[in-house]
Amino acid sequence: MKEQIKEYIEQNKDRFLNELMDMLRIPSVSADPAFSGDVQRTAEYVAERLKEAGADNIEICPTDGNPIVYGEKIISPFVPTVLVYGHYDVQPADPYELWDSPPFEPVIKDEKIYARGSCDDKGQMYMHVKAFESMMKLDSLPCNVKFMIEGEEEVGSVNLGPFIKKHTERLKSDVVLLSDTSMIGNDTPSITVGLRGLAYVEVELIGPNRDLHSGTYGGAVANPINALSQMISSLIDPKTRKITIPGFYDDVIEISAEEKKAISEIPFDINVYKKDLNIDSTLGEVGYSVIEQASTRPTLDVNGIKGGYQGEGAKTVLPSKASAKISMRLVPNQKSEKIANLFADYFKSIAPAGIKVNVTFHHGGEPVVVPMDCVEYQAAAMAYEDTFGKKPLPMRAGGSIPIVALFEEVLGVKSIMMGFGLDTDAIHSPNENFGLFNFYRGIETIPLFYKHYTELKKI
Amino acid sequence: MKEQIKEYIEQNKDRFLNELMDMLRIPSVSADPAFSGDVQRTAEYVAERLKEAGADNIEICPTDGNPIVYGEKIISPFVPTVLVYGHYDVQPADPYELWDSPPFEPVIKDEKIYARGSCDDKGQMYMHVKAFESMMKLDSLPCNVKFMIEGEEEVGSVNLGPFIKKHTERLKSDVVLLSDTSMIGNDTPSITVGLRGLAYVEVELIGPNRDLHSGTYGGAVANPINALSQMISSLIDPKTRKITIPGFYDDVIEISAEEKKAISEIPFDINVYKKDLNIDSTLGEVGYSVIEQASTRPTLDVNGIKGGYQGEGAKTVLPSKASAKISMRLVPNQKSEKIANLFADYFKSIAPAGIKVNVTFHHGGEPVVVPMDCVEYQAAAMAYEDTFGKKPLPMRAGGSIPIVALFEEVLGVKSIMMGFGLDTDAIHSPNENFGLFNFYRGIETIPLFYKHYTELKKI
Repeated sequence: MKEQIKEYIEQNKDRFLNELMDMLRIPSVSADPAFSGDVQRTAEYVAERLKEAGADNIEICPTDGNPIVYGEKIISPFVPTVLVYGHYDVQPADPYELWDSPPFEPVIKDEKIYARGSCDDKGQMYMHVKAFESMMKLDSLPCNVKFMIEGEEEVGSVNLGPFIKKHTERLKSDVVLLSDTSMIGNDTPSITVGLRGLAYVEVELIGPNRDLHSGTYGGAVANPINALSQMISSLIDPKTRKITIPGFYDDVIEISAEEKKAISEIPFDINVYKKDLNIDSTLGEVGYSVIEQASTRPTLDVNGIKGGYQGEGAKTVLPSKASAKISMRLVPNQKSEKIANLFADYFKSIAPAGIKVNVTFHHGGEPVVVPMDCVEYQAAAMAYEDTFGKKPLPMRAGGSIPIVALFEEVLGVKSIMMGFGLDTDAIHSPNENFGLFNFYRGIETIPLFYKHYTELKKI
Repeated sequence: MKEQIKEYIEQNKDRFLNELMDMLRIPSVSADPAFSGDVQRTAEYVAERLKEAGADNIEICPTDGNPIVYGEKIISPFVPTVLVYGHYDVQPADPYELWDSPPFEPVIKDEKIYARGSCDDKGQMYMHVKAFESMMKLDSLPCNVKFMIEGEEEVGSVNLGPFIKKHTERLKSDVVLLSDTSMIGNDTPSITVGLRGLAYVEVELIGPNRDLHSGTYGGAVANPINALSQMISSLIDPKTRKITIPGFYDDVIEISAEEKKAISEIPFDINVYKKDLNIDSTLGEVGYSVIEQASTRPTLDVNGIKGGYQGEGAKTVLPSKASAKISMRLVPNQKSEKIANLFADYFKSIAPAGIKVNVTFHHGGEPVVVPMDCVEYQAAAMAYEDTFGKKPLPMRAGGSIPIVALFEEVLGVKSIMMGFGLDTDAIHSPNENFGLFNFYRGIETIPLFYKHYTELKKI
């Protein structure tokens, strides 16, 4: 199968690329209502390509927001079913002036496609369509496939949850397959085996009922900014850099010795890392490596803070209020709601005299981990080894993709995150790009996952 | 003298008030260049009234900003000279919609004048002009007088320092007299015997060279907001509420037992105070009363803080920068420059790994204290006792009037702060007002200070 797929790709490579470039020309920016027509057009484009590739029961399913494109190929009730997830919407492209070429006029330069969405996620999603086409044309599809391509990933996938809850029967499958993450390098393939969850809260501190003159009242009346600083400060132990919220670590599962070893094998140069960020030192939980700190351990970061006088120069105000946005990244088996509640209880308990505290919750997301010993992971690892000639490294991402946890929760299946992009692809930034090598290697690797997965499930 | 002054005021009270109201109609807002013509007109108005009252050598002295009105009456080289300081500029009046009557259309209601500047400082300054007129008309001026009325007090008196340094000979005097503070109550006269100094700094923390995704980097890279919170927090001991900067208290003079006793006699109801601010508790340095905390003890307040995402909702950014404006109120004998330097040294020393710190200095001001046993204070106390029938309480103000320290430093004389306004006069706020009782009582009391001061100096 491997050689035939490779040959088919070689014969059709220009068409594959042209089709992707046509899709990249449609500015499907989900964050801006001005592009809603383009978003709709992109959904139609995806549906048409799925149909051409051989999918049945194509439907552009309306939601309260942007439509979800569905398509499937059911070949037998006795083989497993792969549910492919992807998204056809893209991040806004501004600031336009920082792009070397217009974001919606894709160009090939240095063996890369430059365009908004080239990697995230049109390019990576389209690998799956073309892999499916290849298997169909070569009559080698080993299992059932369902496609669910949404148009709101970049704005929080708000309508995807209700959709999958409503269509659990239709979406019944054995594994979810998606390519919306990255790998370490073109000669260091990796599979994302973990995502951190997220608990995001906003805190507001109220002191006196009005802004006061800091001369007249300073020293006697609690200052909400000072109080906020003190309270934030006491959330992290300055020595161990552990989060001090009681119960915060109760459900945390330490990574296995095997995974710790795998992480230690990830190529990582601390000097390159520090130089890239222009910092003289990293700072994280004592006893963990930088990669472990940024992917396998929970964190607490203040994402925004404000209070008092924000203008130029000096104003001697003792403000009435101060507020902060605080997010915690979570790891298995922490639960975002429980953590948000633990945070709120503790934060309120440490308010100094004279300060009232409000805590509100923003969205949460659950952490995800894919065990390396499950057939899903092993099939993916075998597919990478087939095409890259080496075992992929398991890697946890520090970020959160809340829908992945949702798939497991609602559909009861694991997700395999086969990212073929690179961290240097500038997703969400000007000059987003996606290597041609990566695009074609993805199309080549995906069918091998289908093959190995179907075989492993049979055993 | 007392009865004659009283009679003269009674005979001229309507004219006095009308003259003040005419001045209040000119919107001399120094902060807004749109009012510069009005500022100039007000200076001219003050100069004319001084001339009518009997002052010589009137001059509207240009500065790099708004002019300073000068006038004098020299009656003999053998009597002391009082330098009257005041200001004819006012705070901006916005928000206009919160005023019950237009800020520059003075009205009398419940025996109070409502208008921007009615108390601060046109009303209080004009008491001195009318007290001078009264003494002149009654031929009872006992000493020399010099008037120096500026137009930039509400914007930091930036041109007053250079002016007094340039005109030390012309401004040569034995005491500075000003009414730009308040007293405790109409039946509890008080004299301001102390002002806190000010050291105002701005700090900026820089972590990574760009805003980062908190998922990808959170946990491994120092977050400038977390760091800023931690650093601010460690500036105050949470138990004693003392400032932890090494050397900060080295030059602080503890108040005398006598002053402590006088402060304890100031009528103060903690429940009224808390209810007014809607706080359930005060918070200040352990071992000191609220009044002591807010006037005789140094403080550290964050006046503004910002960093990261400020908009609605949630954004998972690990920001590159965070900053804060921090002011310290100082007490005798702390020096603002020394304290600012101690702050900067300490603050830089407590930065966590991976964080760079910049500290910049805004304006400073020196603390002031008027000893109760000096003739200047005693003359003022006698004047209040004459008109109020009771000894005034010595009181320190928590705020700063940097120019008062400057008078002492450059001219080598003490300042007597005879404030007749009340804390309820809403200076700097909508519906600023000044009691008619206070206006006339000021005009009545000031000449008695001249009398007692001249007599005490003769002894």
